[in-house]
Amino acid sequence: MTVIPASHRDIAHIGHVELLTPKPDESLWYFRDLLGMEEAHREGGSVFLRGWGDYAASTLKLTEARIAGVGHVSWRAFSPEALERRATVIEATGLGIGWTNGDFGHGRSYQFNDPDGHVMEVYYEEDRYVAPDGLRSALHNQPMKYTGRGIGVRRSDHLALTCRDVAANREFMQVNLGCMLREQIRFENGEVEVGSWMSTTAVHHEVAYVRDNSDLSGRLHHFALWVDNREDVLRAADIFMENGIFIEAGPSKHNNSQAFYLYSHEPGGNRVEVYNAGFMVFAPDFEPVIWDEDNRSGGVYWGQKLPDSFRSYATPVADESMVDADAPVIDPI
Amino acid sequence: MTVIPASHRDIAHIGHVELLTPKPDESLWYFRDLLGMEEAHREGGSVFLRGWGDYAASTLKLTEARIAGVGHVSWRAFSPEALERRATVIEATGLGIGWTNGDFGHGRSYQFNDPDGHVMEVYYEEDRYVAPDGLRSALHNQPMKYTGRGIGVRRSDHLALTCRDVAANREFMQVNLGCMLREQIRFENGEVEVGSWMSTTAVHHEVAYVRDNSDLSGRLHHFALWVDNREDVLRAADIFMENGIFIEAGPSKHNNSQAFYLYSHEPGGNRVEVYNAGFMVFAPDFEPVIWDEDNRSGGVYWGQKLPDSFRSYATPVADESMVDADAPVIDPI
Amino acid sequence: MTVIPASHRDIAHIGHVELLTPKPDESLWYFRDLLGMEEAHREGGSVFLRGWGDYAASTLKLTEARIAGVGHVSWRAFSPEALERRATVIEATGLGIGWTNGDFGHGRSYQFNDPDGHVMEVYYEEDRYVAPDGLRSALHNQPMKYTGRGIGVRRSDHLALTCRDVAANREFMQVNLGCMLREQIRFENGEVEVGSWMSTTAVHHEVAYVRDNSDLSGRLHHFALWVDNREDVLRAADIFMENGIFIEAGPSKHNNSQAFYLYSHEPGGNRVEVYNAGFMVFAPDFEPVIWDEDNRSGGVYWGQKLPDSFRSYATPVADESMVDADAPVIDPI
Amino acid sequence: MTVIPASHRDIAHIGHVELLTPKPDESLWYFRDLLGMEEAHREGGSVFLRGWGDYAASTLKLTEARIAGVGHVSWRAFSPEALERRATVIEATGLGIGWTNGDFGHGRSYQFNDPDGHVMEVYYEEDRYVAPDGLRSALHNQPMKYTGRGIGVRRSDHLALTCRDVAANREFMQVNLGCMLREQIRFENGEVEVGSWMSTTAVHHEVAYVRDNSDLSGRLHHFALWVDNREDVLRAADIFMENGIFIEAGPSKHNNSQAFYLYSHEPGGNRVEVYNAGFMVFAPDFEPVIWDEDNRSGGVYWGQKLPDSFRSYATPVADESMVDADAPVIDPI
Repeated sequence: MTVIPASHRDIAHIGHVELLTPKPDESLWYFRDLLGMEEAHREGGSVFLRGWGDYAASTLKLTEARIAGVGHVSWRAFSPEALERRATVIEATGLGIGWTNGDFGHGRSYQFNDPDGHVMEVYYEEDRYVAPDGLRSALHNQPMKYTGRGIGVRRSDHLALTCRDVAANREFMQVNLGCMLREQIRFENGEVEVGSWMSTTAVHHEVAYVRDNSDLSGRLHHFALWVDNREDVLRAADIFMENGIFIEAGPSKHNNSQAFYLYSHEPGGNRVEVYNAGFMVFAPDFEPVIWDEDNRSGGVYWGQKLPDSFRSYATPVADESMVDADAPVIDPI
Repeated sequence: MTVIPASHRDIAHIGHVELLTPKPDESLWYFRDLLGMEEAHREGGSVFLRGWGDYAASTLKLTEARIAGVGHVSWRAFSPEALERRATVIEATGLGIGWTNGDFGHGRSYQFNDPDGHVMEVYYEEDRYVAPDGLRSALHNQPMKYTGRGIGVRRSDHLALTCRDVAANREFMQVNLGCMLREQIRFENGEVEVGSWMSTTAVHHEVAYVRDNSDLSGRLHHFALWVDNREDVLRAADIFMENGIFIEAGPSKHNNSQAFYLYSHEPGGNRVEVYNAGFMVFAPDFEPVIWDEDNRSGGVYWGQKLPDSFRSYATPVADESMVDADAPVIDPI
Repeated sequence: MTVIPASHRDIAHIGHVELLTPKPDESLWYFRDLLGMEEAHREGGSVFLRGWGDYAASTLKLTEARIAGVGHVSWRAFSPEALERRATVIEATGLGIGWTNGDFGHGRSYQFNDPDGHVMEVYYEEDRYVAPDGLRSALHNQPMKYTGRGIGVRRSDHLALTCRDVAANREFMQVNLGCMLREQIRFENGEVEVGSWMSTTAVHHEVAYVRDNSDLSGRLHHFALWVDNREDVLRAADIFMENGIFIEAGPSKHNNSQAFYLYSHEPGGNRVEVYNAGFMVFAPDFEPVIWDEDNRSGGVYWGQKLPDSFRSYATPVADESMVDADAPVIDPI
Repeated sequence: MTVIPASHRDIAHIGHVELLTPKPDESLWYFRDLLGMEEAHREGGSVFLRGWGDYAASTLKLTEARIAGVGHVSWRAFSPEALERRATVIEATGLGIGWTNGDFGHGRSYQFNDPDGHVMEVYYEEDRYVAPDGLRSALHNQPMKYTGRGIGVRRSDHLALTCRDVAANREFMQVNLGCMLREQIRFENGEVEVGSWMSTTAVHHEVAYVRDNSDLSGRLHHFALWVDNREDVLRAADIFMENGIFIEAGPSKHNNSQAFYLYSHEPGGNRVEVYNAGFMVFAPDFEPVIWDEDNRSGGVYWGQKLPDSFRSYATPVADESMVDADAPVIDPI
């Protein structure tokens, strides 16, 4: 009997993400009152948040820290056996950190670094959200009430990480987590890989790696949350403007992914995207789409061009002197 | 020099509306927390509310009362002289009540009854809304911040009244307030007028009269609030369902007016419509559109048919025995 | 090394569907001019159609026939090996028909019957669409130009089949094709299964089985096409009305799946759904949602209730005498 | 009896607009196949077009010409008497041209120049559109079938003209046509008027004048067409991209007017806006909103900033040497 390569289906989907913020109260206001997320738990210096459509107890851990950035990124395994397999494989790469007892809402996890130094983990056990009184939905198959507060993001969607070597990180994710490659930006006759988008599901991408033009490692380009339609993205722009939130780009349509986006900076400094649409990939033999200097049009299909800050701004923030001002503006959707 | 008939342009637009509710707290929750209106003032047993786009200080007066219904309906005159002219003309009809000193947000008004007994008034002086700190919009030409709370209705739009003699009330409004007729439902070879829609502006209608199939007078069919797009109407349906609000009809598209609607009952019992779209009328020689038994399709172009309750339910609520069960279901958009 | 059960991931996604129509010209007009699909090929009595976002050369085969219904339903295997595995397993059930040389746009397939007698097939080789001059998209990652003709459906999405024994057909699909169960309607204390929704991807469902209340077998309840937003569903209602297409239900929101729907009958008689939204399932341990007599509300969350015809109408059309008039109205989203 | 100043209500609304194009076939393709307008008539070198919601027989006259620009702009009088009054008043200004016998779809008109030299006319008689077989709407109150072709603009909306003296042209329109001032851009402590928006109805603006930074007169900044929702504006961007139409700005939200816009260049060179939303003005004592160097933010609330070409590009196109490169970018919504 032919065996499906284990790496190919051991990860079910991206899990929760931890963001670090030096302004925890203001960041919480942004995620809870403007984006409309719900606080599910609070522990230590962290608040655990969720969108109304997230099935997990929490998908965003917001942690007070000296500087902004990403704490860790988690991936849910398909089964307990898949978790063990992934831990074994990753350990063999030498980038393993070790087992944890898990955090709020999920069981033990195997932590590791990607080649650029971001902290990641794989886990299997996930607590399904059980809404308390007052937050139960009238819809039997919806995890939580749609409260109508602010933008009302449905769920955490994806994130983009910067790194100094896109190819190395991309390959690590393909080989060890079974990520499927969807789109790439390759410059100089395809020899320089400056961005790669990957997913473990039919969703276009769950993680992107884009070239970091500074000397820093382990940085976050942005974290993205899903809304159900483009009107909600437009409504988000109104809500951000009314509340003094910096809109860095959009609402506009990406060429890469075809999604409709709005990039803002949450008060702690992390770039956050409100996101809808984008195409899904069902073909098992999907051929990654390659964009180059000629056809990528700055990452935008129509609408506002991505600003120069897309080349340099990531969290933690780099000193200006660290950034290569001649580097291209990459579009980490 | 030719003179434009004064009646034709003396009224600038429909003004505020007063709704009566036996459940003031629950009604306030509905209008403020679900529809997203803002409380501008409180006085006696009344709360004065406004949409974020209303230029007036308040457009909805919510008053505690023994039974639900409409308190009064106001019309803003085009000028102080126009107000005097209208008062004189109306007084001559014998339906005048007299002058008031005005209420919160507007100056003296001339009150009167329409033939069916609804209380109305004409006034000129209107306080423009000045947003307090925390409610000022980032948009220089927007009266108030878009708060992102609940449905977020932009402004009060129109209302529909029931009456025992549609033709008499329609003529009264045309002759004395200069309302322009837009659409009608006429049955029995056009001899029986069962509904008429009128406006003093380019907006399709500001007031509708539909036949009351009970013996009662002065009743309200519904009050309508405007949202900027159909997605907000759909979002309103989610918010109503999540909060146990009765949805009586929609979201669907009217044939009459072409608008997109959602009818709910606010906790006090009044029927409230969340409303978008509809065509505007610019032609000075517009010919009213007539619907009859054959072409009106129950008032619906597509979507949910209007239920039987549209024939009988109005506030104050009639005793079942008062209602003519054979009367047609009229669509008071 | 632990092996993932082969049945679980051998099918990549639902493939093309063949619909039968006694009015081929009118049906073609409906799919091409109203839905906005593109003709990719014509052969014998069949026209091969596609949505602008379909990656395959064709996803809908429209075939002239004496009566309306579904010709066959195809499933794309994950790999050549997966195809062989599925053929072996299905052959062992006794419901196998045998190998074909494939049809326009795809390679050899293994055909079989589901227990109710619908013809299905599994295949692996799929021709990617290559747009001819004039139909190439300005978007490098989009298979075809968005032409702006009619509704502009993006892609074929799912279908619902009627059957006399839902449990038997549902189990067959789970065991032999690895379909994952998403939602069910179970009556009489859960003992009577009247509807089941399944998928092989993160998309909510690709196929549904609902109880056929007639004596007929192998019937189609509906075929569904995806549009990118709810405004396109509303726009579809306008286009159907303007062209005399019967709208059977909607636009409204399902409770099951949470999707936004519009059901029409194409001129050949088959029920066709224009479809958007619905939740995705990422959890590997997702627990199927069960609806019963008490909580299912006629399959509608808000909007137009599903009409009685949902109990009886399927293609081929049954004689009235064959239909159990007391059967519940099932919602095959 | 007090008389309403005749100038105040003599004009009912803006009428048809004539655009000149050096590429009549390509321009017709743009308006008919991409915007989805309908050809109502053809005569000489002109094609008369209409949106599906326009009540008049035609609202856009597209005329072959050596260079692009605006042919003439018409205003419909409220009555025959109002037409005579306006002709008398305008003749007295010395800018009158004289009476015409009218053009396709409307009766005699009085033509004149505005101070900058644009040709305008006032008329009263307007042929209501009567749809031929195949173009009749299923909606009894809709002038024409919604065909579902391309963007599907509902109606002609407004236009913006450039001029060398905004104040002079604005005053001319206020005094002689009764236009009501809505918003202005005033620089240098309010002393330099660089843009003014006006209307004769509750619609935000029907005409705008913005400063021409060249030596040319009688130029067009843009012509705008209305769609019913923002999704149609976004859809328009897709359609323009797919057909090689230059998108100059948007989709974005204006601050002035609050409207949602998309600016393209039709093949003949004229700038055309696809337009939705914007606030309506009902207050008879509305105070014009003034924007200055500090608060206008380049005319954009959120989304793509207006490009430099907004300062210089108008039709007929100016020689580069004619344009003041230091002039501010004005936003003629």
